[in-house]
Amino acid sequence: MAGTEPGGWSGLWQGRTRVAALDPADRGLAYGDGLFETMRAHAGTLPWWPRHRARLAAGAARLGIPLPDEALLDAALGEALARVPGGVVKLVLTRGAATRGYAPGPEAPPTLWLTASPSLPPAASRPLVVDLLEVRLGVQPMLAGIKHLNRLEQVLGAAEAARRGLDEGLMADAEGRLTAGTRGNLLLRTDGRWWTPALDHAGIAGTVRGLLLSEWTPPGGLRVDTLAIDRLDRIEAVLLVNALRGILPAGRLGARALDPDPPGLDTARAALAAAHPAFREP
Amino acid sequence: MAGTEPGGWSGLWQGRTRVAALDPADRGLAYGDGLFETMRAHAGTLPWWPRHRARLAAGAARLGIPLPDEALLDAALGEALARVPGGVVKLVLTRGAATRGYAPGPEAPPTLWLTASPSLPPAASRPLVVDLLEVRLGVQPMLAGIKHLNRLEQVLGAAEAARRGLDEGLMADAEGRLTAGTRGNLLLRTDGRWWTPALDHAGIAGTVRGLLLSEWTPPGGLRVDTLAIDRLDRIEAVLLVNALRGILPAGRLGARALDPDPPGLDTARAALAAAHPAFREP
Repeated sequence: MAGTEPGGWSGLWQGRTRVAALDPADRGLAYGDGLFETMRAHAGTLPWWPRHRARLAAGAARLGIPLPDEALLDAALGEALARVPGGVVKLVLTRGAATRGYAPGPEAPPTLWLTASPSLPPAASRPLVVDLLEVRLGVQPMLAGIKHLNRLEQVLGAAEAARRGLDEGLMADAEGRLTAGTRGNLLLRTDGRWWTPALDHAGIAGTVRGLLLSEWTPPGGLRVDTLAIDRLDRIEAVLLVNALRGILPAGRLGARALDPDPPGLDTARAALAAAHPAFREP
Repeated sequence: MAGTEPGGWSGLWQGRTRVAALDPADRGLAYGDGLFETMRAHAGTLPWWPRHRARLAAGAARLGIPLPDEALLDAALGEALARVPGGVVKLVLTRGAATRGYAPGPEAPPTLWLTASPSLPPAASRPLVVDLLEVRLGVQPMLAGIKHLNRLEQVLGAAEAARRGLDEGLMADAEGRLTAGTRGNLLLRTDGRWWTPALDHAGIAGTVRGLLLSEWTPPGGLRVDTLAIDRLDRIEAVLLVNALRGILPAGRLGARALDPDPPGLDTARAALAAAHPAFREP
């Protein structure tokens, strides 16, 4: 298929029918009317598929998009993993082809597009340099938490971070709550305790964040909380987490040094490694 | 090309190269990282192309996406109009294929996808029934006004309008300012004078709105203003305007009747007809 990188693979379905090209009227392209998951494959498996599938199902329910048939999805993922046993598998699910106009039509079969790539994002060789971005996340409770295809705010945020020479940018919502990185969730340490921002106004509920909320029990626990951006001075440590790169500590927040090896980092990494073999230390 | 309706046409380019299928890594699908224009064709011409092109250029500058080569764009539009002289031409411009991750890469050629259809949206046979929607528009000044591909809020809004049996839904932003319809701009009459909502927090700056701001001079003029949704009772008349359907008056706002033939509607329609032959009365 056009554009697949060397060693990569791609498969596209409209409903149950495999097709060669995306319909020009697909609502995924027209409106971002769909969802995605980016998953780390290991030894021909997707160890976190149940977590990704649960978020996909939650997003599909929120947007009113039918999930692909289970057998079709299993076969498609099986084909992806047979071709690319280790690396990254990306799943895009859209509401399918539009009749015309924003209102969802009743009958279009959803579009499923899987791509698999053997290449992984480069490992971080040192603690990240992060800072608060100017770009904000709009407040939209109806879309908060799910991994939908409307990601221009992250694109603008990542562009700002690159322009400023940051390894990652911290994004606040329009009402000034620290919410997320451009490409991952935040674990924050203030007053000697760990917490992660609430995601009911903006942001994406990530799989590593979900795993650590249920599996990681540092002293004092891991709670969900909120911090206004005029109190960033309280932050002692920042961990960026996502499903491709795992847990990345930050060493600097703007002009201020952070603890790059804060208490609990080792047990968080152990919880991650216990749940996904790709994150076991070599 | 797959999915084009009978009598329709579609052409896809990556940079200067015509291609048969969208790259699976196209950022338009992955992130909604692009722009669109939906244009009414008439007798083999696009009478408002300069207006659509100006908005496309403004959006491309805002997002940092290069515009297609002028000669390529002219040739592509010429081919669309030769195949479909009357109807709707849709243009999608994306940042092209991603390497990986949200940050724009430097070198991918932009994607241009044109589709043309001879069918028009059905004419409105009576004044529209409209009401304020529960779905709000997130406040995002960096994206306000441009016609980008992140349109899930309009999708959710149009779904709510359809569910409630409305012809069109009125959308406020997250801070309570009345902003737009789901598929067009608003002209509102309060205290005997016409105005249209400011679009610096949310919304799309439409071509008909732009035309009327420069060409329509009702008694008292047409100004840009703001109204909080707790003062909807002040509204005497509502016109929904867009480039496909022109000017559509509303006859009802929630439980309240509106003037479906308010003072100035005739001169607004005359201004529209003078600017685009497709909107001349038969």
